[in-house]
Amino acid sequence: MNKVGVIGAGAWGTALACAMQRAGNEVLLQAYEPEVAEAINRSHANPIYLPNTNLNPNIRATSDLIDIIGSDVILMVAPAQHVRATCKALRPIWKKGTPLLICAKGIELDSGLIMSEVVGEELPDVEIGILSGPTFAIEVANALPSACTLAMKEMDRAMIMAKVVGSSRFRIYASDDIVGAQIGGAVKNVLAIASGMASGKGFGDNARAALITRGISELTRLGVAKGAKPETLMGLSGMGDLTLTCNSMQSRNFSLGVALGHGEKLEDILKVRKAVTEGVFTARSVCKLAASLHVDMPICKAVNRILNEGADINEVVDDLLARPFREEI
Amino acid sequence: MNKVGVIGAGAWGTALACAMQRAGNEVLLQAYEPEVAEAINRSHANPIYLPNTNLNPNIRATSDLIDIIGSDVILMVAPAQHVRATCKALRPIWKKGTPLLICAKGIELDSGLIMSEVVGEELPDVEIGILSGPTFAIEVANALPSACTLAMKEMDRAMIMAKVVGSSRFRIYASDDIVGAQIGGAVKNVLAIASGMASGKGFGDNARAALITRGISELTRLGVAKGAKPETLMGLSGMGDLTLTCNSMQSRNFSLGVALGHGEKLEDILKVRKAVTEGVFTARSVCKLAASLHVDMPICKAVNRILNEGADINEVVDDLLARPFREEI
Repeated sequence: MNKVGVIGAGAWGTALACAMQRAGNEVLLQAYEPEVAEAINRSHANPIYLPNTNLNPNIRATSDLIDIIGSDVILMVAPAQHVRATCKALRPIWKKGTPLLICAKGIELDSGLIMSEVVGEELPDVEIGILSGPTFAIEVANALPSACTLAMKEMDRAMIMAKVVGSSRFRIYASDDIVGAQIGGAVKNVLAIASGMASGKGFGDNARAALITRGISELTRLGVAKGAKPETLMGLSGMGDLTLTCNSMQSRNFSLGVALGHGEKLEDILKVRKAVTEGVFTARSVCKLAASLHVDMPICKAVNRILNEGADINEVVDDLLARPFREEI
Repeated sequence: MNKVGVIGAGAWGTALACAMQRAGNEVLLQAYEPEVAEAINRSHANPIYLPNTNLNPNIRATSDLIDIIGSDVILMVAPAQHVRATCKALRPIWKKGTPLLICAKGIELDSGLIMSEVVGEELPDVEIGILSGPTFAIEVANALPSACTLAMKEMDRAMIMAKVVGSSRFRIYASDDIVGAQIGGAVKNVLAIASGMASGKGFGDNARAALITRGISELTRLGVAKGAKPETLMGLSGMGDLTLTCNSMQSRNFSLGVALGHGEKLEDILKVRKAVTEGVFTARSVCKLAASLHVDMPICKAVNRILNEGADINEVVDDLLARPFREEI
């Protein structure tokens, strides 16, 4: 039995704690807010971030980061924009030789760095892995079948780690492409907004499927420019996560796009939302990153123009549809 | 203005006739049944195969194959299992130099051949192209935005043809991978049944996304063994068509899978259906083809075991989930 520490008790961290426990591990879940840790220990539930779900009583929680140290494996599930601060806090207490699996998805806003780059700067000698795939938290928490990519620099280490975190209901596919496994999760929210807009405008299923496919094409160009293997983008962390996020009202980004497609104003939509809709911020950083790598990402650019540059959704869509025909690849 | 002939006035042939007309072509649609041709000419509608849709009066129809000869381009939209017979009928009357765009998707049951191989045997000197992508007919007919791959041996010929058949609402991406552009359309129906089964069993969105992704992995292995470029499978004819077919109750194969997942018996489901559910037949030929090429296709094999070998759906699913973890690529 391995000890697995999970940093971050949001919906995804809590769901991962459930999956780790089911995989036969002893699980300690670290919550930023003490009241969340207390609720988990007392009532075996996380009513704030993952309501209506019972947690196995063997899952223990803490709000103190130091309690996580000593775990055999640690999962980083802090929100993407808090990963750097969390790593800074971990650096003086880190136990050498503990692998860190990054489960946060996103691009750091100011730096434009992906999560492994942020962690690499703050915890330079730590062995890292990436766990990413098409996974709505509530389904993983409820043990519905799900699958993820687990990428580490060495394939044999990834295979070993797969056996620690995986189970029949949380299937793991091993990869040695750390960069590639992060691209899908970082960009998908922007494409999900585009997909939602197309649905909101009543464009139908064909348009959404085309958009997802051209979206993977953009993702792959960006990934390859960052050093990813293109095959990784065809995997669970790439097209898997994209097809999930772009096809379901469960995704906050998709539903934001639908509202925009219906003609609602961005500020009105955001006003009534409690949870963060990451894609709104990511759109800008993806476009900046793409520009710096000289990568053409017409769909992300279109979303950014609408969200952050006041462009009219109908004009932007007409522009996209009027692009000259080109070679597919 | 080009003359475009469309062979086959089913839902897809009729929708393509609409798209060809909108692209600025003079369109003649050949219907197998004289009453369908007559209805199109008289009432500008195809109530049998594409009900509730008005056709542009400029679309003319015929039931005589010979009338199609003389077109600048001909689209082959006969059902996959009738393509050989249609080519046999065309052979003595074919006008040399006319390109033939194959829009039929599938594998010939007895031979296990893909459509370009069937056409190649019957019309050996004809220049062929493949038009394939994520396209529900009704949406194309109604001018909702859609996109397709058009593959020809020479990329410059594909680009020229793209301008003949494409428009802003029917966007074309050119490819030179004729084999790759057929694999998605040929196999997707089997995977759509699997996806439907997962939904019917209440497995959730994660499972469906994982299944689609592992499905693309199978498709790609099969495609590469047949000589396709793997990138093509990431395109509109591959993952595009798959994500469409596996996510929508509009797909007959998906809805069949849902019914099976609910525990209904195959023979009971098929009894009340008028239209053909291609995946039921294709499952067997895909597995035969995969075996002959020594390609592992666990999902297609699982579907075939359930449909054609009487295996129990729950046992097959448990087997799939219990497979050992492996490398993703």
